[in-house]
Amino acid sequence: MIRLFHSPLSPFCRKVRLSLAEKKLEVELVEERYWEKDGEFLRRNPAAKVPVLKMDGMMMAESSAICEYIEETHPTPSLLPKGAVERFEVRRMVSWFDDKFHHEVTSKLLYERVNKKVMAQGYPDSANVKAGARNIKYHLDYMGWILDQRRWLAGDAMSLADFAAAAHLSALDYISDVDWNRNDNVKTWYAKIKSRPAFRSILADQVPGFPPPAHYTDLDF
Amino acid sequence: MIRLFHSPLSPFCRKVRLSLAEKKLEVELVEERYWEKDGEFLRRNPAAKVPVLKMDGMMMAESSAICEYIEETHPTPSLLPKGAVERFEVRRMVSWFDDKFHHEVTSKLLYERVNKKVMAQGYPDSANVKAGARNIKYHLDYMGWILDQRRWLAGDAMSLADFAAAAHLSALDYISDVDWNRNDNVKTWYAKIKSRPAFRSILADQVPGFPPPAHYTDLDF
Repeated sequence: MIRLFHSPLSPFCRKVRLSLAEKKLEVELVEERYWEKDGEFLRRNPAAKVPVLKMDGMMMAESSAICEYIEETHPTPSLLPKGAVERFEVRRMVSWFDDKFHHEVTSKLLYERVNKKVMAQGYPDSANVKAGARNIKYHLDYMGWILDQRRWLAGDAMSLADFAAAAHLSALDYISDVDWNRNDNVKTWYAKIKSRPAFRSILADQVPGFPPPAHYTDLDF
Repeated sequence: MIRLFHSPLSPFCRKVRLSLAEKKLEVELVEERYWEKDGEFLRRNPAAKVPVLKMDGMMMAESSAICEYIEETHPTPSLLPKGAVERFEVRRMVSWFDDKFHHEVTSKLLYERVNKKVMAQGYPDSANVKAGARNIKYHLDYMGWILDQRRWLAGDAMSLADFAAAAHLSALDYISDVDWNRNDNVKTWYAKIKSRPAFRSILADQVPGFPPPAHYTDLDF
Protein backbone atom coordinates (compact mmCIF):
# COMPACT_ATOMS: atom_id res chain seq x y z
CA MET A 1 0.00 0.00 0.00
CA ILE A 2 1.28 3.45 -0.92
CA ARG A 3 1.06 5.95 1.92
CA LEU A 4 1.59 9.70 1.70
CA PHE A 5 2.43 11.77 4.76
CA HIS A 6 1.11 15.16 3.75
CA SER A 7 -0.47 18.47 4.62
CA PRO A 8 -3.73 19.26 2.75
CA LEU A 9 -2.84 22.67 1.30
CA SER A 10 0.86 22.00 0.64
CA PRO A 11 1.42 22.52 -3.11
CA PHE A 12 4.30 20.01 -3.08
CA CYS A 13 2.04 17.34 -1.57
CA ARG A 14 -0.74 18.22 -4.02
CA LYS A 15 1.63 17.77 -6.97
CA VAL A 16 2.51 14.27 -5.75
CA ARG A 17 -1.17 13.45 -5.09
CA LEU A 18 -2.11 14.56 -8.61
CA SER A 19 0.68 12.44 -10.14
CA LEU A 20 -0.37 9.35 -8.20
CA ALA A 21 -4.06 9.85 -8.99
CA GLU A 22 -3.48 10.45 -12.70
CA LYS A 23 -1.64 7.11 -12.82
CA LYS A 24 -4.44 5.46 -10.84
CA LEU A 25 -2.13 4.55 -7.97
CA GLU A 26 -4.18 4.27 -4.79
CA VAL A 27 -2.72 6.06 -1.82
CA GLU A 28 -3.54 6.30 1.85
CA LEU A 29 -3.22 9.92 3.02
CA VAL A 30 -1.83 10.55 6.49
CA GLU A 31 -2.01 14.16 7.64
CA GLU A 32 1.24 15.25 9.21
CA ARG A 33 1.71 18.18 11.55
CA TYR A 34 5.32 18.31 10.41
CA TRP A 35 6.09 21.64 12.08
CA GLU A 36 5.68 20.01 15.49
CA LYS A 37 8.78 17.93 14.67
CA ASP A 38 7.42 14.77 16.23
CA GLY A 39 10.21 12.21 16.78
CA GLU A 40 8.45 9.52 14.76
CA PHE A 41 8.13 11.79 11.75
CA LEU A 42 11.74 12.98 11.98
CA ARG A 43 12.88 9.37 11.82
CA ARG A 44 10.90 8.98 8.62
CA ASN A 45 12.31 12.18 7.16
CA PRO A 46 15.32 14.06 8.52
CA ALA A 47 14.42 17.06 6.33
CA ALA A 48 11.32 17.47 8.56
CA LYS A 49 8.94 18.42 5.80
CA VAL A 50 6.16 16.99 3.69
CA PRO A 51 5.54 15.20 1.37
CA VAL A 52 7.00 11.89 2.49
CA LEU A 53 5.91 8.99 0.34
CA LYS A 54 6.03 5.39 1.52
CA MET A 55 6.24 3.33 -1.64
CA ASP A 56 8.08 0.21 -2.79
CA GLY A 57 9.52 -0.24 0.70
CA MET A 58 11.13 3.21 0.78
CA MET A 59 10.41 6.40 2.66
CA MET A 60 10.86 9.08 0.04
CA ALA A 61 11.26 12.84 0.46
CA GLU A 62 11.62 15.74 -2.02
CA SER A 63 8.63 16.14 -4.31
CA SER A 64 10.53 16.56 -7.57
CA ALA A 65 12.58 13.39 -7.00
CA ILE A 66 9.36 11.59 -5.99
CA CYS A 67 7.52 12.66 -9.15
CA GLU A 68 10.41 11.54 -11.37
CA TYR A 69 10.39 8.18 -9.58
CA ILE A 70 6.65 7.73 -10.06
CA GLU A 71 7.07 8.64 -13.73
CA GLU A 72 9.93 6.17 -14.26
CA THR A 73 8.23 3.27 -12.49
CA HIS A 74 4.70 3.97 -13.82
CA PRO A 75 5.20 5.64 -17.19
CA THR A 76 1.57 5.35 -18.35
CA PRO A 77 -0.24 7.72 -18.68
CA SER A 78 2.82 9.84 -19.30
CA LEU A 79 3.41 13.12 -17.49
CA LEU A 80 6.78 13.72 -19.15
CA PRO A 81 7.12 13.84 -22.95
CA LYS A 82 9.66 11.75 -24.87
CA GLY A 83 12.07 14.28 -26.40
CA ALA A 84 14.89 15.88 -24.38
CA VAL A 85 13.88 19.42 -25.42
CA GLU A 86 10.25 18.84 -24.44
CA ARG A 87 11.29 17.20 -21.16
CA PHE A 88 13.51 20.18 -20.41
CA GLU A 89 10.58 22.53 -20.86
CA VAL A 90 8.39 20.51 -18.48
CA ARG A 91 11.09 20.47 -15.81
CA ARG A 92 11.82 24.17 -16.31
CA MET A 93 8.17 25.01 -15.74
CA VAL A 94 7.93 22.73 -12.68
CA SER A 95 10.90 24.62 -11.21
CA TRP A 96 9.30 27.93 -12.16
CA PHE A 97 6.28 27.13 -10.00
CA ASP A 98 7.98 25.23 -7.19
CA ASP A 99 10.77 27.77 -6.85
CA LYS A 100 9.88 31.21 -8.23
CA PHE A 101 6.07 31.14 -7.90
CA HIS A 102 6.42 29.47 -4.50
CA HIS A 103 8.78 32.19 -3.29
CA GLU A 104 6.94 35.16 -4.81
CA VAL A 105 3.32 34.10 -4.33
CA THR A 106 2.53 30.91 -2.36
CA SER A 107 4.82 31.65 0.59
CA LYS A 108 3.56 35.24 0.77
CA LEU A 109 -0.17 34.47 0.63
CA LEU A 110 -0.87 30.91 1.75
CA TYR A 111 1.90 30.64 4.32
CA GLU A 112 1.16 34.04 5.79
CA ARG A 113 -2.61 33.64 5.91
CA VAL A 114 -3.03 29.94 6.72
CA ASN A 115 0.19 28.21 7.78
CA LYS A 116 1.11 30.86 10.37
CA LYS A 117 -2.29 30.47 12.06
CA VAL A 118 -2.33 26.67 11.88
CA MET A 119 1.23 26.52 13.25
CA ALA A 120 0.46 29.18 15.91
CA GLN A 121 3.25 31.39 14.60
CA GLY A 122 1.50 34.75 14.89
CA TYR A 123 -0.26 37.05 12.47
CA PRO A 124 0.16 37.51 8.73
CA ASP A 125 2.79 40.05 7.70
CA SER A 126 0.74 42.53 5.67
CA ALA A 127 3.71 43.62 3.54
CA ASN A 128 4.19 40.03 2.45
CA VAL A 129 0.49 39.56 1.73
CA LYS A 130 0.45 42.73 -0.37
CA ALA A 131 3.55 41.63 -2.29
CA GLY A 132 2.03 38.19 -2.93
CA ALA A 133 -1.22 39.73 -4.18
CA ARG A 134 0.77 41.94 -6.54
CA ASN A 135 3.07 39.13 -7.72
CA ILE A 136 0.32 36.66 -8.57
CA LYS A 137 -0.97 39.08 -11.21
CA TYR A 138 2.11 38.96 -13.36
CA HIS A 139 2.35 35.20 -12.92
CA LEU A 140 -1.22 34.80 -14.17
CA ASP A 141 -0.35 37.07 -17.09
CA TYR A 142 2.75 34.98 -17.86
CA MET A 143 0.66 31.79 -17.79
CA GLY A 144 -1.94 33.42 -20.04
CA TRP A 145 0.77 34.40 -22.51
CA ILE A 146 2.18 30.87 -22.54
CA LEU A 147 -1.28 29.33 -22.94
CA ASP A 148 -1.85 31.55 -25.96
CA GLN A 149 0.83 29.53 -27.74
CA ARG A 150 0.31 26.03 -26.33
CA ARG A 151 -2.58 23.81 -25.26
CA TRP A 152 -0.92 23.04 -21.93
CA LEU A 153 1.75 24.87 -19.94
CA ALA A 154 4.79 23.03 -21.27
CA GLY A 155 3.53 21.90 -24.68
CA ASP A 156 0.64 20.21 -26.43
CA ALA A 157 0.20 17.47 -23.84
CA MET A 158 -0.70 17.74 -20.17
CA SER A 159 2.39 17.19 -18.00
CA LEU A 160 3.91 17.52 -14.57
CA ALA A 161 4.22 21.25 -15.28
CA ASP A 162 0.42 21.58 -15.28
CA PHE A 163 0.17 19.62 -12.05
CA ALA A 164 2.85 21.76 -10.38
CA ALA A 165 1.01 24.93 -11.41
CA ALA A 166 -2.42 23.55 -10.47
CA ALA A 167 -1.07 22.42 -7.10
CA HIS A 168 -0.09 25.99 -6.21
CA LEU A 169 -3.14 27.66 -7.73
CA SER A 170 -5.62 25.23 -6.17
CA ALA A 171 -4.14 25.82 -2.70
CA LEU A 172 -4.41 29.58 -3.26
CA ASP A 173 -7.93 29.16 -4.62
CA TYR A 174 -8.88 27.46 -1.36
CA ILE A 175 -8.35 30.83 0.33
CA SER A 176 -9.88 32.80 -2.60
CA ASP A 177 -6.56 34.33 -3.63
CA VAL A 178 -6.83 33.67 -7.36
CA ASP A 179 -8.64 36.15 -9.60
CA TRP A 180 -9.98 33.81 -12.27
CA ASN A 181 -11.35 36.74 -14.24
CA ARG A 182 -7.89 38.14 -14.90
CA ASN A 183 -7.07 35.86 -17.82
CA ASP A 184 -9.41 33.72 -19.91
CA ASN A 185 -6.67 31.31 -21.02
CA VAL A 186 -5.75 30.55 -17.43
CA LYS A 187 -9.39 30.06 -16.42
CA THR A 188 -10.03 27.69 -19.33
CA TRP A 189 -6.85 25.75 -18.50
CA TYR A 190 -7.81 25.45 -14.83
CA ALA A 191 -11.35 24.34 -15.69
CA LYS A 192 -9.88 21.52 -17.80
CA ILE A 193 -7.50 20.32 -15.12
CA LYS A 194 -10.01 20.78 -12.28
CA SER A 195 -12.49 18.45 -13.98
CA ARG A 196 -10.05 15.53 -14.15
CA PRO A 197 -10.77 12.58 -11.86
CA ALA A 198 -7.23 13.04 -10.43
CA PHE A 199 -8.38 16.36 -8.96
CA ARG A 200 -11.25 14.95 -6.85
CA SER A 201 -9.25 14.30 -3.69
CA ILE A 202 -7.81 17.84 -3.79
CA LEU A 203 -11.28 19.36 -4.07
CA ALA A 204 -12.45 17.35 -1.06
CA ASP A 205 -9.77 18.82 1.26
CA GLN A 206 -10.91 20.63 4.38
CA VAL A 207 -8.70 22.61 6.75
CA PRO A 208 -10.29 23.22 10.19
CA GLY A 209 -10.85 26.94 10.73
CA PHE A 210 -10.61 27.67 7.01
CA PRO A 211 -13.78 26.61 5.18
CA PRO A 212 -13.24 26.79 1.40
CA PRO A 213 -15.34 29.23 -0.65
CA ALA A 214 -18.25 27.79 -2.64
CA HIS A 215 -16.46 28.18 -5.98
CA TYR A 216 -13.53 26.04 -4.80
CA THR A 217 -15.23 22.76 -5.71
CA ASP A 218 -17.39 24.17 -8.50
CA LEU A 219 -16.27 22.87 -11.89
CA ASP A 220 -18.12 25.78 -13.52
CA PHE A 221 -16.54 28.54 -11.41
CA MET B 1 29.24 26.89 -29.11
CA ILE B 2 27.77 26.40 -25.66
CA ARG B 3 27.62 29.59 -23.59
CA LEU B 4 26.85 29.87 -19.90
CA PHE B 5 25.69 33.13 -18.34
CA HIS B 6 26.81 32.71 -14.78
CA SER B 7 28.11 34.17 -11.55
CA PRO B 8 31.41 32.67 -10.29
CA LEU B 9 30.37 31.66 -6.77
CA SER B 10 26.78 30.66 -7.56
CA PRO B 11 26.41 26.99 -6.52
CA PHE B 12 23.73 26.46 -9.17
CA CYS B 13 26.07 27.71 -11.90
CA ARG B 14 28.92 25.63 -10.51
CA LYS B 15 26.78 22.49 -10.65
CA VAL B 16 26.07 23.12 -14.34
CA ARG B 17 29.76 23.92 -15.02
CA LEU B 18 30.82 20.66 -13.34
CA SER B 19 28.30 18.65 -15.38
CA LEU B 20 29.44 20.19 -18.66
CA ALA B 21 33.13 19.73 -17.82
CA GLU B 22 32.72 16.13 -16.70
CA LYS B 23 31.14 15.39 -20.08
CA LYS B 24 33.94 17.31 -21.84
CA LEU B 25 31.52 19.85 -23.31
CA GLU B 26 33.38 23.09 -23.94
CA VAL B 27 31.61 26.18 -22.69
CA GLU B 28 32.19 29.90 -22.95
CA LEU B 29 31.55 31.54 -19.59
CA VAL B 30 29.90 34.96 -19.54
CA GLU B 31 29.76 36.64 -16.16
CA GLU B 32 26.32 38.10 -15.51
CA ARG B 33 25.50 40.83 -13.00
CA TYR B 34 21.97 39.44 -12.92
CA TRP B 35 20.87 41.52 -9.92
CA GLU B 36 21.19 44.69 -12.03
CA LYS B 37 18.30 43.35 -14.15
CA ASP B 38 19.77 44.52 -17.40
CA GLY B 39 17.16 44.50 -20.18
CA GLU B 40 19.22 42.26 -22.42
CA PHE B 41 19.55 39.61 -19.71
CA LEU B 42 15.86 39.77 -18.81
CA ARG B 43 15.01 39.02 -22.42
CA ARG B 44 17.21 35.93 -22.20
CA ASN B 45 15.65 34.85 -18.91
CA PRO B 46 12.43 36.25 -17.45
CA ALA B 47 13.25 34.61 -14.10
CA ALA B 48 16.17 37.08 -13.83
CA LYS B 49 18.65 34.66 -12.35
CA VAL B 50 21.67 32.57 -13.29
CA PRO B 51 22.54 30.07 -14.66
CA VAL B 52 21.26 30.59 -18.17
CA LEU B 53 22.69 28.12 -20.66
CA LYS B 54 22.74 28.75 -24.39
CA MET B 55 22.89 25.31 -25.97
CA ASP B 56 21.35 23.59 -28.98
CA GLY B 57 19.73 26.86 -30.04
CA MET B 58 17.88 27.32 -26.74
CA MET B 59 18.25 29.69 -23.83
CA MET B 60 17.77 27.47 -20.82
CA ALA B 61 17.09 28.41 -17.21
CA GLU B 62 16.69 26.37 -13.99
CA SER B 63 19.77 24.38 -13.05
CA SER B 64 18.05 21.09 -12.28
CA ALA B 65 16.20 21.05 -15.62
CA ILE B 66 19.47 22.01 -17.35
CA CYS B 67 21.42 19.18 -15.71
CA GLU B 68 18.75 16.62 -16.65
CA TYR B 69 18.90 17.90 -20.24
CA ILE B 70 22.69 17.62 -20.39
CA GLU B 71 22.43 14.10 -18.96
CA GLU B 72 19.80 13.02 -21.50
CA THR B 73 21.57 14.46 -24.52
CA HIS B 74 25.12 13.49 -23.40
CA PRO B 75 24.72 10.36 -21.30
CA THR B 76 28.44 9.45 -21.19
CA PRO B 77 30.07 9.60 -18.70
CA SER B 78 26.90 9.06 -16.70
CA LEU B 79 25.97 11.30 -13.77
CA LEU B 80 22.68 9.50 -13.13
CA PRO B 81 22.56 5.75 -12.46
CA LYS B 82 20.28 3.37 -14.40
CA GLY B 83 17.82 2.06 -11.81
CA ALA B 84 14.78 4.08 -10.70
CA VAL B 85 15.60 3.64 -7.00
CA GLU B 86 19.19 4.79 -7.50
CA ARG B 87 18.07 7.72 -9.66
CA PHE B 88 15.60 8.72 -6.97
CA GLU B 89 18.38 8.83 -4.41
CA VAL B 90 20.57 11.04 -6.63
CA ARG B 91 17.72 13.47 -7.22
CA ARG B 92 16.76 13.48 -3.55
CA MET B 93 20.30 14.42 -2.58
CA VAL B 94 20.50 17.12 -5.26
CA SER B 95 17.32 18.64 -3.81
CA TRP B 96 18.74 18.27 -0.30
CA PHE B 97 21.67 20.52 -1.23
CA ASP B 98 19.92 22.90 -3.62
CA ASP B 99 16.95 23.39 -1.33
CA LYS B 100 17.69 22.58 2.32
CA PHE B 101 21.47 23.18 2.43
CA HIS B 102 21.02 26.27 0.27
CA HIS B 103 18.40 27.68 2.62
CA GLU B 104 20.12 26.75 5.87
CA VAL B 105 23.77 27.33 4.98
CA THR B 106 24.66 28.88 1.61
CA SER B 107 22.15 31.73 1.75
CA LYS B 108 23.14 32.51 5.34
CA LEU B 109 26.92 32.52 4.82
CA LEU B 110 27.80 33.16 1.18
CA TYR B 111 24.89 35.46 0.36
CA GLU B 112 25.30 37.47 3.56
CA ARG B 113 29.06 37.80 3.34
CA VAL B 114 29.70 38.07 -0.40
CA ASN B 115 26.53 38.64 -2.45
CA LYS B 116 25.30 41.52 -0.27
CA LYS B 117 28.58 43.37 -0.71
CA VAL B 118 28.90 42.64 -4.42
CA MET B 119 25.29 43.71 -4.99
CA ALA B 120 25.71 46.78 -2.72
CA GLN B 121 22.85 45.62 -0.51
CA GLY B 122 24.32 46.51 2.86
CA TYR B 123 26.08 44.59 5.61
CA PRO B 124 25.87 40.94 6.59
CA ASP B 125 23.14 40.11 9.11
CA SER B 126 25.12 38.61 11.97
CA ALA B 127 22.21 36.46 13.20
CA ASN B 128 22.06 34.82 9.77
CA VAL B 129 25.83 34.30 9.65
CA LYS B 130 25.76 32.69 13.09
CA ALA B 131 22.88 30.42 12.10
CA GLY B 132 24.67 29.39 8.90
CA ALA B 133 27.89 28.62 10.81
CA ARG B 134 25.89 26.46 13.21
CA ASN B 135 23.87 24.72 10.48
CA ILE B 136 26.84 23.72 8.33
CA LYS B 137 28.12 21.56 11.19
CA TYR B 138 25.19 19.20 11.22
CA HIS B 139 25.19 19.08 7.43
CA LEU B 140 28.86 18.04 7.42
CA ASP B 141 28.02 15.41 10.05
CA TYR B 142 25.12 14.13 7.92
CA MET B 143 27.41 13.89 4.88
CA GLY B 144 30.03 12.10 6.97
CA TRP B 145 27.40 9.60 8.14
CA ILE B 146 26.27 8.96 4.58
CA LEU B 147 29.84 8.59 3.33
CA ASP B 148 30.43 5.98 6.00
CA GLN B 149 28.02 3.74 4.09
CA ARG B 150 28.69 4.67 0.48
CA ARG B 151 31.64 5.62 -1.70
CA TRP B 152 29.84 8.68 -3.06
CA LEU B 153 26.95 10.71 -1.70
CA ALA B 154 24.13 8.91 -3.50
CA GLY B 155 25.67 5.48 -4.01
CA ASP B 156 28.76 3.71 -5.27
CA ALA B 157 29.24 5.90 -8.33
CA MET B 158 29.90 9.61 -8.57
CA SER B 159 26.73 11.46 -9.60
CA LEU B 160 24.99 14.79 -9.90
CA ALA B 161 24.47 14.60 -6.12
CA ASP B 162 28.22 14.91 -5.57
CA PHE B 163 28.40 17.85 -7.97
CA ALA B 164 25.49 19.61 -6.27
CA ALA B 165 27.15 19.18 -2.88
CA ALA B 166 30.61 20.15 -4.16
CA ALA B 167 29.14 23.22 -5.86
CA HIS B 168 27.86 24.54 -2.53
CA LEU B 169 30.86 23.51 -0.48
CA SER B 170 33.44 24.87 -2.95
CA ALA B 171 31.69 28.26 -2.97
CA LEU B 172 31.73 28.28 0.83
CA ASP B 173 35.34 27.12 0.84
CA TYR B 174 36.20 30.17 -1.27
CA ILE B 175 35.34 32.28 1.79
CA SER B 176 36.90 29.78 4.25
CA ASP B 177 33.56 28.76 5.72
CA VAL B 178 34.09 24.99 5.63
CA ASP B 179 35.86 23.26 8.51
CA TRP B 180 37.54 20.38 6.69
CA ASN B 181 38.81 18.95 9.95
CA ARG B 182 35.32 18.28 11.23
CA ASN B 183 34.85 15.01 9.37
CA ASP B 184 37.44 12.79 7.68
CA ASN B 185 34.95 11.17 5.32
CA VAL B 186 33.88 14.54 3.98
CA LYS B 187 37.46 15.71 3.56
CA THR B 188 38.44 12.54 1.68
CA TRP B 189 35.35 12.85 -0.53
CA TYR B 190 36.11 16.51 -1.30
CA ALA B 191 39.77 15.75 -2.07
CA LYS B 192 38.63 13.16 -4.64
CA ILE B 193 36.18 15.47 -6.35
CA LYS B 194 38.49 18.50 -6.16
CA SER B 195 41.21 16.66 -8.07
CA ARG B 196 38.99 15.89 -11.07
CA PRO B 197 39.79 17.77 -14.28
CA ALA B 198 36.15 19.00 -14.25
CA PHE B 199 36.97 21.03 -11.13
CA ARG B 200 39.77 23.11 -12.66
CA SER B 201 37.64 25.99 -13.89
CA ILE B 202 35.97 26.29 -10.47
CA LEU B 203 39.34 26.49 -8.72
CA ALA B 204 40.45 29.27 -11.08
CA ASP B 205 37.54 31.57 -10.14
CA GLN B 206 38.35 35.01 -8.76
CA VAL B 207 35.88 37.47 -7.29
CA PRO B 208 37.19 41.07 -7.09
CA GLY B 209 37.45 42.19 -3.46
CA PHE B 210 37.39 38.59 -2.22
CA PRO B 211 40.75 36.87 -2.78
CA PRO B 212 40.43 33.12 -2.09
CA PRO B 213 42.46 31.59 0.75
CA ALA B 214 45.60 29.62 -0.21
CA HIS B 215 43.98 26.25 0.58
CA TYR B 216 41.14 26.91 -1.89
CA THR B 217 43.13 25.67 -4.89
CA ASP B 218 45.35 23.27 -2.94
CA LEU B 219 44.54 19.63 -3.78
CA ASP B 220 46.26 18.58 -0.56
CA PHE B 221 44.37 20.96 1.73
